[in-house]
Amino acid sequence: MSERLRSDARRNYARILAVAEEEVAARGAGASLEQIARTAGVGSATVRRHFPTRRALLEAVSHKRIDALGARAHDLAAHDDSRTALLEWLSEVVAYCVSARGLAAALSYDGAGADPVHENSCSATLEEAAGPLLRRAVRDGAVGAGVTVADLIALSVGIALATEHHADPAAQAERLFRLTVTGLRPEA
Amino acid sequence: MSERLRSDARRNYARILAVAEEEVAARGAGASLEQIARTAGVGSATVRRHFPTRRALLEAVSHKRIDALGARAHDLAAHDDSRTALLEWLSEVVAYCVSARGLAAALSYDGAGADPVHENSCSATLEEAAGPLLRRAVRDGAVGAGVTVADLIALSVGIALATEHHADPAAQAERLFRLTVTGLRPEA
Repeated sequence: MSERLRSDARRNYARILAVAEEEVAARGAGASLEQIARTAGVGSATVRRHFPTRRALLEAVSHKRIDALGARAHDLAAHDDSRTALLEWLSEVVAYCVSARGLAAALSYDGAGADPVHENSCSATLEEAAGPLLRRAVRDGAVGAGVTVADLIALSVGIALATEHHADPAAQAERLFRLTVTGLRPEA
Repeated sequence: MSERLRSDARRNYARILAVAEEEVAARGAGASLEQIARTAGVGSATVRRHFPTRRALLEAVSHKRIDALGARAHDLAAHDDSRTALLEWLSEVVAYCVSARGLAAALSYDGAGADPVHENSCSATLEEAAGPLLRRAVRDGAVGAGVTVADLIALSVGIALATEHHADPAAQAERLFRLTVTGLRPEA
């Protein structure tokens, strides 16, 4: 491929991704690939070449968010209380999933474990980032020994998906998150 | 409307509902209304007359399940331990949501509270049925005072939605439910 063609392809990809971000933000995980192609001024085939599946599209759109959550897990590792640090991180995962429509759906495919060859997935990135936070909390007896990062992400994703149609998704998601970490019990 | 026409309409409705149950079981909440119409041998307009919205369709399909869950809540009210009774009921809500594709989606619209005129909804039925179970557990200090049946259903729905693409949805949903009711802590 000539330099000229490669740079056209890169520009195409960047434009499609920018349009996809807007469409997913506006319409959620069900955003229309055809609409994305139309707005980006390319053919559907071009969109499908860059994003062969809906999951691939959602993951690309969610990429920046996922990186930010990874960085946040790294920062929180320095926190004194291991349970507090883990729950703080998790509450940010919930908030991100609620605010970034499509992220929760991307992660719900992802945590499924049905596609082991899919490396560099959103979940893989988050698992690596949050592994140290979780292991420390388990070591301190603050979290059950069998709990995995994938479990925690699935709970967060579930809260985001269950509150998507709520009148105030952010508030309701935070409420459900508090119920989850208190085991529905009265707060101490 | 003549008796003959009325009985035709009833048969139509029953046939559409039976086809809709199969389609939703096979394809989940995104089942195609057009496919339902084709299989039932009626026009799309007829399907839309009976079920003006996707939510109405999902609710009709889920109706029997919801009634069974209501009856179960009634039975469990006689249980000695109020927290055990409530959690047993809730674990059945999770299992039902996982096994009946479409039920979780119906309830996620429902718990949204965005449609207060929608009476006799799935959530309203469950709230009435589970209200006594929850109030007793709150009175015993076994569940937080601000918790509502809608919160509990939203958590159950979230677990079902988050595990839909998992290799073993039932097992993973049960696992996430245990994590939720223990507040992620090691089990005593």
